[in-house]
Amino acid sequence: MKATVYYAAGDVRVENVPDPVIVDPTDAVVRITHACICGSDLWFYRGEAKAWKPGWRTGHEWMGIVDAVGAGVTSLKKGDRVLAPFAFSDGSCEFCHKSVQTSCSNGGYWGGGDNDGGQGEAIRAPQADGTLVKIPDNAANDPALLKAILPLTDVLGTGHHAAVSAGVTKDSTVAVVGDGAVGLCAVLAAKRLGAQRIIAFGRHAARLDVAKRFGATDVITERGEEAIGKALAMTNGGPECVLECVGSEGSMAMASGMARPGGTIGYVGVPYGSAKGLNLSRMFGENIALRGGVAPVRAYIPELLADVLAGKLDASPVFDLCVELDGVPGGYAKMDARTAIKVMVTP
Amino acid sequence: MKATVYYAAGDVRVENVPDPVIVDPTDAVVRITHACICGSDLWFYRGEAKAWKPGWRTGHEWMGIVDAVGAGVTSLKKGDRVLAPFAFSDGSCEFCHKSVQTSCSNGGYWGGGDNDGGQGEAIRAPQADGTLVKIPDNAANDPALLKAILPLTDVLGTGHHAAVSAGVTKDSTVAVVGDGAVGLCAVLAAKRLGAQRIIAFGRHAARLDVAKRFGATDVITERGEEAIGKALAMTNGGPECVLECVGSEGSMAMASGMARPGGTIGYVGVPYGSAKGLNLSRMFGENIALRGGVAPVRAYIPELLADVLAGKLDASPVFDLCVELDGVPGGYAKMDARTAIKVMVTP
Repeated sequence: MKATVYYAAGDVRVENVPDPVIVDPTDAVVRITHACICGSDLWFYRGEAKAWKPGWRTGHEWMGIVDAVGAGVTSLKKGDRVLAPFAFSDGSCEFCHKSVQTSCSNGGYWGGGDNDGGQGEAIRAPQADGTLVKIPDNAANDPALLKAILPLTDVLGTGHHAAVSAGVTKDSTVAVVGDGAVGLCAVLAAKRLGAQRIIAFGRHAARLDVAKRFGATDVITERGEEAIGKALAMTNGGPECVLECVGSEGSMAMASGMARPGGTIGYVGVPYGSAKGLNLSRMFGENIALRGGVAPVRAYIPELLADVLAGKLDASPVFDLCVELDGVPGGYAKMDARTAIKVMVTP
Repeated sequence: MKATVYYAAGDVRVENVPDPVIVDPTDAVVRITHACICGSDLWFYRGEAKAWKPGWRTGHEWMGIVDAVGAGVTSLKKGDRVLAPFAFSDGSCEFCHKSVQTSCSNGGYWGGGDNDGGQGEAIRAPQADGTLVKIPDNAANDPALLKAILPLTDVLGTGHHAAVSAGVTKDSTVAVVGDGAVGLCAVLAAKRLGAQRIIAFGRHAARLDVAKRFGATDVITERGEEAIGKALAMTNGGPECVLECVGSEGSMAMASGMARPGGTIGYVGVPYGSAKGLNLSRMFGENIALRGGVAPVRAYIPELLADVLAGKLDASPVFDLCVELDGVPGGYAKMDARTAIKVMVTP
């Protein structure tokens, strides 16, 4: 089969690789119908994820049709259409029970190391029972609905995690730092949770249009200290909930510089800028909390999928480019250049 | 009157200063009966608090007897015995209503700048109605009870804030980083909230004795990575609640290195080591939250004072040295040398 393989910064290739097979009895093999390129893939694409090694498979967002299951799999069968969160988990350990499936004792992430990636024709999926979620048969032939389900594999669940971690509730005032797909989904999630005011930051017209469509009530186009000052003035002291959806030193500085005393930063951007950007002395002095982390999207899929199936939730406008598998390297380049928000892949 | 004045690192002096007078109608003037030296005073005493200027008054923990009140003060009168949290606050702004009195729109801290300090014979107390808490008359002549009330001015409320911020509840497994008075009070607060297991870190026998007396069930005498490893092993993956009561780079590294996936660090140590010590990539990967900050002890005084008056809560064993006002400079030196845990001052 064909799959995308990492070689070096700026160099991912679609190549022939061995077909996946069942290894452990808890495995499934799934033929991939939909995948994505993620903003967090750009960390290795830009050479910032130093641990990445040539030969590793890429892609952690995917849906597909079960092709085979191991002897220990009880909830799925060949032909089932499924959705995968970006991390696999056994569904039975302490951390899965606590809805921190990303810390599962038997879990892991798609792509990298020995794991298959989602940007390929098929994938071996460990812990299939704990991980994969069946998509109802009546959705199977509705391309628009499948496209609306796809963001549940990562970006919508991740934006929702930012909002939940920041304590967004009815009438909250919210700021969303980051205009990538996760930031846009965080706007949508905050709106869904009842936020009264949602301030989006950015200066890219197409992205801000999606933000407004998703529920942003205000837009700030300044950056850094100027953006902080404007947010503080606009909210008379800062938004209670700040959704940090980038992970850079600058975005951490913005989030911690503007949150309201007693407020919370919900952070979901992979922190490649380490903790340096955090204004910890302001956070300490004003009792601003930092909550979140890698999103346990598996925990959120049932609730969010119900809304998608009911036609009440649709993050698919974040996909502004669709490519076949051979178009994946070009998709990376466009996301890196910020000429695409998010790329959908149909192998 | 006499009061303690900061001159330079290692140099605080007890000097004659002008008697305090009512300036604003919301002021009280209070004759101080009890004060303390705080571990956080050591930041300026050691020259780490660069903003401190010669001539500034010191001390933020005190109790006393009201000597005069301004025309706008309605809840207090001359002769009332009162307790002060370490920050003053108006009791009526948004942040006071949200129990973040340390972010009060009209608030501030005792000592430093233009404010009187608690390590003196008397003090001008702004925002008297919002800040000062009356001590019942029947406690006034019980020296042991007054000594048990004194930690509510800061260290017990601060330890309690660490525990509350970390989400300590019945049956929690808790680690307390820091064996100073705040750390010891955090042990006591965690015990009071029902923690099942409380791990204290330290190697100073007298401090660990107090920790055990306050409810510590386990003690770890190692430091740094070794301490982290031992805590992870002892709890099969880390304590859910870590109470960070130091604020140094090393203590932040310990706290963030050992918290259980999905757990919370409640931090109350003034973060002079900035955010550098935080292991943010572990916190992100394991969804470990950071909550807390400067403790809004005013919010906790009613609840904690009731327990102290009922004889159910007594943090006074943290005071292992008592001095009169002239002994304050010597008290600083002993706390700096760690030959005293915490000094009580009786002007």
